[in-house]
Amino acid sequence: MPRYKAVIAYDGTNYAGFQVQQNAHTVQAEIENTLRRFNKGKSITIHPSGRTDSGVHAKGQVIHFDYPDVRDSEKFRFALDTQTPDDISFISVEQVHEDFHARYLAKEKVYHYYVDLGQTRDPFKRLYSAHYRYELDLDRIRQAAKYIEGEHDFSVFCATGSAVEDKTRHVYEVNLVELSDTELRFEFRGNGFLYKMVRMLVGTLLKIGNGQLPVDAIKIALENQDKKMTGPTAHPEGLFLMKVDYES
Amino acid sequence: MPRYKAVIAYDGTNYAGFQVQQNAHTVQAEIENTLRRFNKGKSITIHPSGRTDSGVHAKGQVIHFDYPDVRDSEKFRFALDTQTPDDISFISVEQVHEDFHARYLAKEKVYHYYVDLGQTRDPFKRLYSAHYRYELDLDRIRQAAKYIEGEHDFSVFCATGSAVEDKTRHVYEVNLVELSDTELRFEFRGNGFLYKMVRMLVGTLLKIGNGQLPVDAIKIALENQDKKMTGPTAHPEGLFLMKVDYES
Repeated sequence: MPRYKAVIAYDGTNYAGFQVQQNAHTVQAEIENTLRRFNKGKSITIHPSGRTDSGVHAKGQVIHFDYPDVRDSEKFRFALDTQTPDDISFISVEQVHEDFHARYLAKEKVYHYYVDLGQTRDPFKRLYSAHYRYELDLDRIRQAAKYIEGEHDFSVFCATGSAVEDKTRHVYEVNLVELSDTELRFEFRGNGFLYKMVRMLVGTLLKIGNGQLPVDAIKIALENQDKKMTGPTAHPEGLFLMKVDYES
Repeated sequence: MPRYKAVIAYDGTNYAGFQVQQNAHTVQAEIENTLRRFNKGKSITIHPSGRTDSGVHAKGQVIHFDYPDVRDSEKFRFALDTQTPDDISFISVEQVHEDFHARYLAKEKVYHYYVDLGQTRDPFKRLYSAHYRYELDLDRIRQAAKYIEGEHDFSVFCATGSAVEDKTRHVYEVNLVELSDTELRFEFRGNGFLYKMVRMLVGTLLKIGNGQLPVDAIKIALENQDKKMTGPTAHPEGLFLMKVDYES
């Protein structure tokens, strides 16, 4: 059966995350319902590069699925884009080799995390950034972020409930961008990220920036798997899966 | 009783507009409920610079209200900001002269209208811009916009249901800003705007840009009060009330 790869974006606000769950409104269920209608009522399963949690957004999630017919890419994209709800969009669809796998063959992912520093929480950012109204020393955050880069066992930054055994990941780059006086963006690029890892890292970086943890907290946390050197899991609404890259 | 002026922002998505209506969720009702709680259960009425419709947003709406106690501005602002829902924010609160009136004394208003031109509708703009996927000649729009500027009887650009008698308004400036390849912003500045006037003007400008109406359609519409020379009312979600100015 022909295999398709699609790049999709979604506003996670109104979803209980990506993955199908009983009695919950999920991104996967919406897309699979649409594909089933196209496929004369027969089920099609989609496979994402990775799940995203409730409230987390995507601008460049990648999925693959098998579909019985060979279809024109742009027409298929347009049909999926217009037949799925407004908060899910299909950016591209292409037929790929039947060996392609959105999850197993992903070689790099980029996540962005937005923080709103405004005294007043901006109503237009409330669903797309985390509000943090306390003092932050950005130099401390930048120093601390350096300890994330490289290959480490990130177990201490993995939420319970993960079935993954090997918790070593290579984080290529962590950047902090000041978009304005009241808006920050954290950028993470790596070969993969564990369950809630980005949000736990952001929560820890904010606590370091606020002076509640030492600048080398992440270094100690990674070396000793020391939970006390980590912060809380940052809220989901600030997180965006931006990009997934594959071997070409 | 002391009179207060407040500058507020709200995401209009989840509201049936500003004004109190029976059995409807409105911005005015939320704010008045909060003020009533502060005022030991006694009602306080708020007065906006003007209503906004269902789905329309504000970044700089101005309201006034009378409140029995003299309160510290920042503390009052913070209390109102945190006690109203997340999609309403209080940017500033100040005690003003008892003659101040948010509606009657407004001397200038600024509205912005966002248009998403992307082939694929962006899930993150769907609540904050109107999607327009057809061809647009921006030069035609800029030429047409010039006919809006100046003092005119805008009756033909006023929706039915308005109780206002004098429909003459002075529009100081109309600008079209290309924010990116796929995002436009219309900017309107004038001494006041009639019911749905900005949205009817945007709907007409888009139709002119798409070649369905002549470049001088707005000139003819104003001179002859000719409805045939106007376009449809543009969707509410692209519209933002940005600013209201008063005599200092």
